[in-house]
Amino acid sequence: MAKKTVNVGLVGYQFMGKAHSNAYRQVARFFDLDVQPVMKAICGRNEANVRAAAEKYGWESYETDWKKLVARDDIDLIDVSTPGNSHAEIAIGALNAGKHVVCEKPLANTLADTREMLAAAQKAGVVHALCHVYRKAPAIGLAKQLISEDVIGKIYHFRATYLQDWIVDPNFPLVWRLQKEVAGSGSHGDLNAHLIDMARYLVGEIAEVSGMMETFVKQRPKLAASDDRLGGKASDEMGDVTVDDAALFLARFENGAVGTFEATRFALGRKNYNRFEINGSKGSIAFNLERMNELELYLASDPENIRGFRTIAATDSMHPYAGAWWPVGHIIGYEHTFINLMSDLFQAIAHGTPVNPNFEDGVRNQAVLEAVEKSAATRQWESAAI
Amino acid sequence: MAKKTVNVGLVGYQFMGKAHSNAYRQVARFFDLDVQPVMKAICGRNEANVRAAAEKYGWESYETDWKKLVARDDIDLIDVSTPGNSHAEIAIGALNAGKHVVCEKPLANTLADTREMLAAAQKAGVVHALCHVYRKAPAIGLAKQLISEDVIGKIYHFRATYLQDWIVDPNFPLVWRLQKEVAGSGSHGDLNAHLIDMARYLVGEIAEVSGMMETFVKQRPKLAASDDRLGGKASDEMGDVTVDDAALFLARFENGAVGTFEATRFALGRKNYNRFEINGSKGSIAFNLERMNELELYLASDPENIRGFRTIAATDSMHPYAGAWWPVGHIIGYEHTFINLMSDLFQAIAHGTPVNPNFEDGVRNQAVLEAVEKSAATRQWESAAI
Amino acid sequence: MAKKTVNVGLVGYQFMGKAHSNAYRQVARFFDLDVQPVMKAICGRNEANVRAAAEKYGWESYETDWKKLVARDDIDLIDVSTPGNSHAEIAIGALNAGKHVVCEKPLANTLADTREMLAAAQKAGVVHALCHVYRKAPAIGLAKQLISEDVIGKIYHFRATYLQDWIVDPNFPLVWRLQKEVAGSGSHGDLNAHLIDMARYLVGEIAEVSGMMETFVKQRPKLAASDDRLGGKASDEMGDVTVDDAALFLARFENGAVGTFEATRFALGRKNYNRFEINGSKGSIAFNLERMNELELYLASDPENIRGFRTIAATDSMHPYAGAWWPVGHIIGYEHTFINLMSDLFQAIAHGTPVNPNFEDGVRNQAVLEAVEKSAATRQWESAAI
Amino acid sequence: MAKKTVNVGLVGYQFMGKAHSNAYRQVARFFDLDVQPVMKAICGRNEANVRAAAEKYGWESYETDWKKLVARDDIDLIDVSTPGNSHAEIAIGALNAGKHVVCEKPLANTLADTREMLAAAQKAGVVHALCHVYRKAPAIGLAKQLISEDVIGKIYHFRATYLQDWIVDPNFPLVWRLQKEVAGSGSHGDLNAHLIDMARYLVGEIAEVSGMMETFVKQRPKLAASDDRLGGKASDEMGDVTVDDAALFLARFENGAVGTFEATRFALGRKNYNRFEINGSKGSIAFNLERMNELELYLASDPENIRGFRTIAATDSMHPYAGAWWPVGHIIGYEHTFINLMSDLFQAIAHGTPVNPNFEDGVRNQAVLEAVEKSAATRQWESAAI
Repeated sequence: MAKKTVNVGLVGYQFMGKAHSNAYRQVARFFDLDVQPVMKAICGRNEANVRAAAEKYGWESYETDWKKLVARDDIDLIDVSTPGNSHAEIAIGALNAGKHVVCEKPLANTLADTREMLAAAQKAGVVHALCHVYRKAPAIGLAKQLISEDVIGKIYHFRATYLQDWIVDPNFPLVWRLQKEVAGSGSHGDLNAHLIDMARYLVGEIAEVSGMMETFVKQRPKLAASDDRLGGKASDEMGDVTVDDAALFLARFENGAVGTFEATRFALGRKNYNRFEINGSKGSIAFNLERMNELELYLASDPENIRGFRTIAATDSMHPYAGAWWPVGHIIGYEHTFINLMSDLFQAIAHGTPVNPNFEDGVRNQAVLEAVEKSAATRQWESAAI
Repeated sequence: MAKKTVNVGLVGYQFMGKAHSNAYRQVARFFDLDVQPVMKAICGRNEANVRAAAEKYGWESYETDWKKLVARDDIDLIDVSTPGNSHAEIAIGALNAGKHVVCEKPLANTLADTREMLAAAQKAGVVHALCHVYRKAPAIGLAKQLISEDVIGKIYHFRATYLQDWIVDPNFPLVWRLQKEVAGSGSHGDLNAHLIDMARYLVGEIAEVSGMMETFVKQRPKLAASDDRLGGKASDEMGDVTVDDAALFLARFENGAVGTFEATRFALGRKNYNRFEINGSKGSIAFNLERMNELELYLASDPENIRGFRTIAATDSMHPYAGAWWPVGHIIGYEHTFINLMSDLFQAIAHGTPVNPNFEDGVRNQAVLEAVEKSAATRQWESAAI
Repeated sequence: MAKKTVNVGLVGYQFMGKAHSNAYRQVARFFDLDVQPVMKAICGRNEANVRAAAEKYGWESYETDWKKLVARDDIDLIDVSTPGNSHAEIAIGALNAGKHVVCEKPLANTLADTREMLAAAQKAGVVHALCHVYRKAPAIGLAKQLISEDVIGKIYHFRATYLQDWIVDPNFPLVWRLQKEVAGSGSHGDLNAHLIDMARYLVGEIAEVSGMMETFVKQRPKLAASDDRLGGKASDEMGDVTVDDAALFLARFENGAVGTFEATRFALGRKNYNRFEINGSKGSIAFNLERMNELELYLASDPENIRGFRTIAATDSMHPYAGAWWPVGHIIGYEHTFINLMSDLFQAIAHGTPVNPNFEDGVRNQAVLEAVEKSAATRQWESAAI
Repeated sequence: MAKKTVNVGLVGYQFMGKAHSNAYRQVARFFDLDVQPVMKAICGRNEANVRAAAEKYGWESYETDWKKLVARDDIDLIDVSTPGNSHAEIAIGALNAGKHVVCEKPLANTLADTREMLAAAQKAGVVHALCHVYRKAPAIGLAKQLISEDVIGKIYHFRATYLQDWIVDPNFPLVWRLQKEVAGSGSHGDLNAHLIDMARYLVGEIAEVSGMMETFVKQRPKLAASDDRLGGKASDEMGDVTVDDAALFLARFENGAVGTFEATRFALGRKNYNRFEINGSKGSIAFNLERMNELELYLASDPENIRGFRTIAATDSMHPYAGAWWPVGHIIGYEHTFINLMSDLFQAIAHGTPVNPNFEDGVRNQAVLEAVEKSAATRQWESAAI
């Protein structure tokens, strides 16, 4: 019997389009899948650009209107990799057309939108997935296993930072990520969303938060009109930055743990410094995305004279996903987290099972994000319950 | 002309008594001082213990009543190294007797007490010093220099943790540090006080805070009655833990920077992990007390292809205090921060100049600590202004 | 004008076959190439295995006899990814057929063979390349730039280790890599070959060596007859290990620098620890393959109070090859070094220019390897001149 | 009964004089000793300097002639902290006078001298000690325990480097350490001596060696005549450097382990980088003197998915010597290794037991050093047997 295939339609062709295209191209080369993805069509509004992307990344065809893509009978899975403000409309359109949907994070820019998306997904009865890909790093998979097996015990602390430095220069232009109507928020939705997903995955649901948000550079040069992409050229005209440069919050988890979260684009020297530590009653774990193949682990059960944080190279065949890749000690990179997630997604599609993370995670993530924003406004603790 | 001497009387003979005695014994052996300390008398309530300490640590005499010590004509400087609840009475007694005073941190357990102590010091016109000794690590001295010289520019972020793990075991007994009436608070006054001092020293005054405090283990075995020291034996009877196990807060500085602070005794694997990072408009610095001879520095002014955090061994003769010690690459330890501070103190006494940190720092530190406690109770932001 | 294509034929389908297949599949997706590779045919002796590999890795066809592959008119480039003892025959066959050739390292198991291969390549006038892929890590490319620009000055020291631990267990079976007639040598040709290539690339030619080789475990269980692959099952019968477990040597470079080299498969905890350091008159650099996205750099020209090794994330668009991949701080992995090398190879084919490293590097590398083996036998220094 | 005392006479007042004086002053303050050291007299040829040192470091008296010191009845222990070329004469003089002797490393500059010293010590029947103080770091003490308890199994590899950078500048003057007649050798006796001691202590005796030595900068400015100390001012006249800048060797141990040793003063950025790693059949350990409070340990017996090098803070009360110092996580420094050694020395004197390391270690150390020098000359392997 020939293997079944899943025809993929991807909306978006920039940074995430590149990463997702790569994942579709690679996933069946490294994982034994029960269905095979077919790179059917890529979609974007600028025809010249999307045509070039189709050729570059290996898509069979392209579309310039997502509604046409969604309407195509030969598409089984829609991948939503556009800026956050268009996620809800596209995803709901796809779900209503009965397609499986995988969506880049954040699921949407508002809690209301995420709820509608989840409802549409549940009604459609399809597979829905959310691209919080860092869950799929082998080191994080190992962390999840250790926590599930009670290796670090009852969790007391989660502390996480996601630090970048790409807009410290006040002359860096006003790209779409700095505009609230497109991006929803700044470092908060971009970076804290990752930390919240990790916290929820590894520690549990967040009950309440106290947050603050700050915009250090309040005006920046607008982009030259013809260039709307990240990294475009600045014009002479100034415009208001309408999102946060940094967003920090304290949290209480439902299970009694406490947490600190900090996202910023103003930490010079930190490029993609998604680092967290979890302290439990039996041990601690720590992770840094800049060294994403490593997990640090401390065990109180070690003999007392040789206790210490050990650095585990999560590159061995028994580590989650790692067996699909290279021999121990041969590291993988950023893009592999997407491929690992896609392997889960296609197996879920093959077997009609749920995948994690999914739209429910998107709703809960957004609920925390909005609670923090509310707290920053009211200057008091706010519930993060959905 | 013979060098002048300063006769020292030390109150307290336990952990801090050991560290301070060592500092008095060593300071003139490594620094060229304009006055020489003389280890005149040590004071403690248990005569057998204090007599042994006097012999062990090299004090000429001992007292069992601090009031007698303070009344002695042959004492010029009183060192207050007792638990925090007795600092105010002893220090004010000494100040009223015209003695110079150096006090262990925290200056006192309440803001009201610290204000009285500062007033008494100002009235007495003597030298007053506060033992936030980490300021005196060469790496911190270097950090201060770099910030003063605008090397890292306008500061945006301060993030600090002080993590320990000595009471994670729920059977660890109810020592004095876990009792509010003696210790004032738990991890907050013990550890956050250090972070606050560092923040104030390197970044500036804190304007407002939002905090939370948590006691994970709410009851512990009482100590056997005969043993009141840290590390004593547990009895069968349980008692209430009346201080925080962890205390976390967000802060805004007067200069616009934002900060995160976290103190805990529940971070397995972290023994004395006082780590902070400062991000400015031109660069970043980072420090970890467990590797206290090193300072990490990132400079945006480096050529773009070779930018990165550099690890500076602050052990060279041009680094603050380091010239008094060993050749470059030969590290110093915890105790040396006390000796470095004492070298500043005795020079201040010799020349009638102020020393840093001093009682004014103690007042401001306590104001922040209390603002956090208030915020934890009101569940909203509180001003830290004095 | 349509882009030209290069039809590839790959001999070998195991570990290196997987890595090379991936490189051909990916290279044109990330690099703008002036010729496009076409994955025409893969070749291996076991038809079932090679057919499965062709499907898995995306080859259009397969062959079971390399001579047939080499004879095919539709093949432009032969990739030799078999064990070292067959490299010479296959490569020379391909060269004599006028194909471009890229060969896995080592170029061959004997210096005599490498010389013949180089002669054949020169006679054929084609592009020849050798897969010392670590040259193509962005961090190494940066190191090369810095050295070329005299940033670290005259080089005094090179010290390198390549440490692994996969055969410490004495029950690990007698795989082909432990048999001299197939593998040529053990850790020496496998691991020291990498170090020698790096040394030659970054420091210069090696003049003379003093070496030693050691086999710690002299007999191991033979593999079950049906299984000749790495990781296969052990039988009850013991056989002799005929290669080195560890090989160490001292070296003098032609330019006066001195070096230490150490390769072992007996360093527990080191999985792929290819670490080296270079010290020059103006600075030092250090690299560790397990953290291959990072380069450490020390500059004596930094202000004296802030000198230290900086850790550079070689993931920025200005770093060699990195611009083809992901944003700064998003790391790449082991496989990308192959893809980067292939991008050089296809540009060389497009433009008829040489590529580095090539068969000449293979000759020189083998000359050093053999000089070390000779030195280990004669117990004195030996010339490494070719 | 009053505690007994041991009266100490120290020859030398420069760097080592400072470190040893400190050790005598401190040892009884932190360790419970069965005899108490008394700092009786310090000795040096320059009266003004030695008088100042006596006052600064706390010696009761001074001498300007070591023969007078050795002849004093009130001296029990002679400490030889002069440059290596005077060790033999002074130590033998002291031994013949029946004094206990502690000698700085190297024991002497020639194997012949060390043999005579050992013979004199054995004849005198006193306690003799050699200041290879790094043995006394708690992390090294822990390493020794782990090896003794077979935790890392049969040892296969020892690899060590001792890297410094203080003479990279060719204008650094021709101090005594660069003159063979005083220093005996350069980096070899200064730095490799430390590595050899560590190797012998932790791994076992060295059977044979193959070495090389190099002087990169062959002439340097002579010191101004009036200044013979390290760090003095350069004159306009050039002189020959008669010692090695770097010394490297391979070794075979009697127990079958193999080793690499490298000492250099030409490794920019490495200040006191005494780093070694030991690989055994059950685990590995690693150490770096620049982070001397830490020991890295890998255990093959850990569960396979969580194996990794752990970083142990050897600052806990159960670690060797650490209980005498500060609470866990509060680090000690360079000088403490001397104090720890002195605590062993005085206990040995109190109980008439041997101390390690001692003059026998000095003989064996020198035998290895000379074998390396011989090998560098003969360009072949040489035996290091005594």
